Amino acid sequence: MFYHQLYLVLLLVLVTININSLALTIDQKSNTVHLEAPNLSGQYHNNRPSLPFSSNVNKIELISKADIINPCNGTFMKTNGTTCGLKEIMLGRCYQYQYIQRGLYLSNTTAVKNCTELYELFESEVRFKPYCNMNMSTYEKYFQRALEGVHVINRAIFWSGTYAITHTYSGHGHNYITLEDTLAANMLDGLMWCGKENDPQGFDYVSCPNNCQDNRWADLAFWGLASKTFAERVAGEIYVVLNGSRTDGRPSYRNGSYFAEFELPNFQRTGPYRVTKINILVLHTPDLPVVERCGDKSIIHLEHLIRDAQFEYICIDDPDELLLIMCGDSWGARECEVARTALRRAWDLKVLGKSNANYYPLSLLLLFFTGIFRQMLSN
Amino acid sequence: MFYHQLYLVLLLVLVTININSLALTIDQKSNTVHLEAPNLSGQYHNNRPSLPFSSNVNKIELISKADIINPCNGTFMKTNGTTCGLKEIMLGRCYQYQYIQRGLYLSNTTAVKNCTELYELFESEVRFKPYCNMNMSTYEKYFQRALEGVHVINRAIFWSGTYAITHTYSGHGHNYITLEDTLAANMLDGLMWCGKENDPQGFDYVSCPNNCQDNRWADLAFWGLASKTFAERVAGEIYVVLNGSRTDGRPSYRNGSYFAEFELPNFQRTGPYRVTKINILVLHTPDLPVVERCGDKSIIHLEHLIRDAQFEYICIDDPDELLLIMCGDSWGARECEVARTALRRAWDLKVLGKSNANYYPLSLLLLFFTGIFRQMLSN
Repeated sequence: MFYHQLYLVLLLVLVTININSLALTIDQKSNTVHLEAPNLSGQYHNNRPSLPFSSNVNKIELISKADIINPCNGTFMKTNGTTCGLKEIMLGRCYQYQYIQRGLYLSNTTAVKNCTELYELFESEVRFKPYCNMNMSTYEKYFQRALEGVHVINRAIFWSGTYAITHTYSGHGHNYITLEDTLAANMLDGLMWCGKENDPQGFDYVSCPNNCQDNRWADLAFWGLASKTFAERVAGEIYVVLNGSRTDGRPSYRNGSYFAEFELPNFQRTGPYRVTKINILVLHTPDLPVVERCGDKSIIHLEHLIRDAQFEYICIDDPDELLLIMCGDSWGARECEVARTALRRAWDLKVLGKSNANYYPLSLLLLFFTGIFRQMLSN
Repeated sequence: MFYHQLYLVLLLVLVTININSLALTIDQKSNTVHLEAPNLSGQYHNNRPSLPFSSNVNKIELISKADIINPCNGTFMKTNGTTCGLKEIMLGRCYQYQYIQRGLYLSNTTAVKNCTELYELFESEVRFKPYCNMNMSTYEKYFQRALEGVHVINRAIFWSGTYAITHTYSGHGHNYITLEDTLAANMLDGLMWCGKENDPQGFDYVSCPNNCQDNRWADLAFWGLASKTFAERVAGEIYVVLNGSRTDGRPSYRNGSYFAEFELPNFQRTGPYRVTKINILVLHTPDLPVVERCGDKSIIHLEHLIRDAQFEYICIDDPDELLLIMCGDSWGARECEVARTALRRAWDLKVLGKSNANYYPLSLLLLFFTGIFRQMLSN
């Protein structure tokens, strides 16, 4: 049986050589277009702070840096302080979200929320107030108002270590809804802010503390509550995208992650807006090692938690829908070449009616044989 | 020769059947995850008006619709009037663009432009002014200020009939720069506006005329000048993405398009910021017929225009970089299946160490044979 297949393999190689000689007779049009790799994820930034569940917090520095020139005036200056134009950006996004973007959970009869009112609910909790006094109830009124009447049914998607691809896939709320695709979180996504007492502007544009010795909740005041409130408002089937190729030593599902601390415990278990099924999608980055899969270590732990909470559970590694997006972005990845080669071939046939790629049949056959041998070995 | 290959083909089919029977012994994990197709282009809208180069213009209606309730208050209402929150959206985008987004042509020493000043330059030309009085010089001061000091070198990309994919590829200015990725155009992208005399707000939020009997330039006042000003500020190699699968009967390169009327004629031919080379990229949408290719009809005409203007010219059909993006978006396309199948196989091997797809060897072989037969026919 084995030798029979090996014999055929040799025959196939002969065919390949034959094909290659045929292909060489076809015009090889040289082209020298230089194109940049897509690098789509470059446009996505996540500034949700890491969870400070550690006792190793630094002494915060609240010294006023009055000698530093105003970073919101003149030449661009990268700071750790409040984003310049915070108010304008929030208001602009609020209008844009409601009048243009309109994520798929907004129906034509959803009342438009008053953007000025939302901004003022936010501002009243932060402006002139010391950062380290914030806690998990600081922004309650803001979220209550911004998410009033919202239920995301069968379209909610969560991310943990997969910010960029999950947001590409969600399509800014046109395909799925991430936390950041809701009005409440969208207004602040990617922004930084901290109040400052005894300051004419009430915000510190130079430097924000990123942890507080006596109040580890200050950093979670916004994004922790945002995650919790969003989780309370999703229903039906939900999706969770985990990173199965983490290179930082962390597990795919981690106690202390936003998902573990604020999202999973807050899904509704009863009532008309209960979560019924949790679809775990584990992604493996091109050209990075596979660290965890469905059914591995931390994901087994997650499965137990989900089943104990009476939710239906399913886990799938690398769904097709996300594979092409990953490879469309990881342009140079060795593991994506197979798709590029296959599409090149298909489009050369479609557009030119012939193949320009004489290396193609060989690479296709190599792939084919890899499969044969792997299957032989697995039998 | 032909029969020899046909014989091998039969042998190969036998191998395939053999492989399939092997594959059937492998666990077939059923999964019932339902995922939406990505549909990434749903997030992109182009509201640049069609060029009104036609004598068949309608009588415009400027009747005040005072009986219509304010569409910017309460329930969302889709209108043809000025976008609600126009000012807030423009200001917010201006800050976001300069302090967060920062397209790749902005260096760390680029002076930050005054957003309020930019908005006021814009507003002063439109608010309280009748729409049909606008012309190609209306927004001159706005563009002059917004694009002051800007030169896009080797990174400018133009689109014509390819708005969505070109913008996905440009990555909001992180990969390439489209017109809409510049500050000047970004502030108005996707928005609508028209002034209204004798109105307390000065804008018509109910209905904007979309063509003017006595002044065909009114509609071009903004986007025509935007295209012209951008074209004047690009340098080095530039890229133009054309649609080779238009289903509306229009050619890929069309006299009367924004590219033909405002961009191509305005590229600098001399001086330090001259355009040196124009790379034409012709895309063919998955599952749509190929209408034009490099070297076909309207693209030959374009080549003549480019060479006559002393620019270097190159044309390429469907570069690899864009093929994967097209297929990542056109999820259900038959012509993209080959990439999905190839990636599925590669990831099953990577993640599971075996293939779950017993249909795969067959489809790969079919593709392979298609190639053989096409090559036989072309010889």
